[in-house]
Amino acid sequence: MKTGTLLVVSGPSGSGKGTILNKVIADENVSLSVSATTRKPRDGEIDGVHYHFMTREKFLNEIANNNILEYNEYCGNLYGTLKSEVESLLSEGKDVILEIDVNGAKKIADSMECVRVFILPPSMDILKQRLSSRGTETTETLNKRINQAHNEIKEAYEYDYAVVNDMLEDAVKNIRLILETERLRTSKMKFKIDELNRRSF
Amino acid sequence: MKTGTLLVVSGPSGSGKGTILNKVIADENVSLSVSATTRKPRDGEIDGVHYHFMTREKFLNEIANNNILEYNEYCGNLYGTLKSEVESLLSEGKDVILEIDVNGAKKIADSMECVRVFILPPSMDILKQRLSSRGTETTETLNKRINQAHNEIKEAYEYDYAVVNDMLEDAVKNIRLILETERLRTSKMKFKIDELNRRSF
Repeated sequence: MKTGTLLVVSGPSGSGKGTILNKVIADENVSLSVSATTRKPRDGEIDGVHYHFMTREKFLNEIANNNILEYNEYCGNLYGTLKSEVESLLSEGKDVILEIDVNGAKKIADSMECVRVFILPPSMDILKQRLSSRGTETTETLNKRINQAHNEIKEAYEYDYAVVNDMLEDAVKNIRLILETERLRTSKMKFKIDELNRRSF
Repeated sequence: MKTGTLLVVSGPSGSGKGTILNKVIADENVSLSVSATTRKPRDGEIDGVHYHFMTREKFLNEIANNNILEYNEYCGNLYGTLKSEVESLLSEGKDVILEIDVNGAKKIADSMECVRVFILPPSMDILKQRLSSRGTETTETLNKRINQAHNEIKEAYEYDYAVVNDMLEDAVKNIRLILETERLRTSKMKFKIDELNRRSF
């Protein structure tokens, strides 16, 4: 059976990557990877669905066992991606999407075969409008986010693909195109080439 | 403007690559590269459409000027791919398809950025049927072609993509998918990333 594709997706805050990816994973053959965390579950959060909840001791054990592809500490809690989780989905033939920042994406690419996609805003003006319209940002945090976006977009050159989120449906279609095309990679078609090479008559 | 993609397509005789590619180039943004040859034009053949017809002296000059990406001699005539022809189509934003054997494909990949696609038959039995049904092959030439196909398919691993020609329409769709996805490569989206990086406010 064909293994799936690990799609690592980054993009600045306001690029709309979360909205795009939620539409993409509506396809039953595509999964979002569930992160591990040492944070306590909030009301309604389900273990294995929203996060893999675990003690700090267990999390540090997973790091020691080389089962954490990348992790971060935020407000005293650890958040990370379980290699075993990603590999098990891929081996079922599912495509796995990891939404992750540029530093995390680099770490993943160092340890697993993956395809990296960067989500771009149509323009910096539109990005600013999108961030302002949330209404939750002060001018100071807004400028901070715009600067942060500039720093992240500089890293886009290192990615395999860049998708502009102008019209949401087009961006979703383009992510699906990438996943569909990846299934034609010779590395994924190896079973078929092997089969044709085996036959002799 | 975005430059096009150079798609180098190989596959054994009987894989149906010619039929597939004729359908793909019905798209106005995709062109087949016209080969250069020292062979005399046959009735109805138009210079610049079927071939770029030229003298042996001119052809050897093109080789000396590094303008021949790859060439072959067949029945005393030279056949080759003009670099200037391919580059001019790409710079117009067109995708260019080169149908070429595995050795030619290697030479192209050594000198230009390209995407290599291998067309596979669904099975060797079906390939044999397809070749037999032409009715023009003796058992000996048929076996020769099958052996040749085996030798070529071994090279498929070196290609970027493999497309199985089971249902013609699916194979055509898959070639189009590859071309469409290539337009999302960060190397092709550089102009957009540059534009976003330039803006500051």
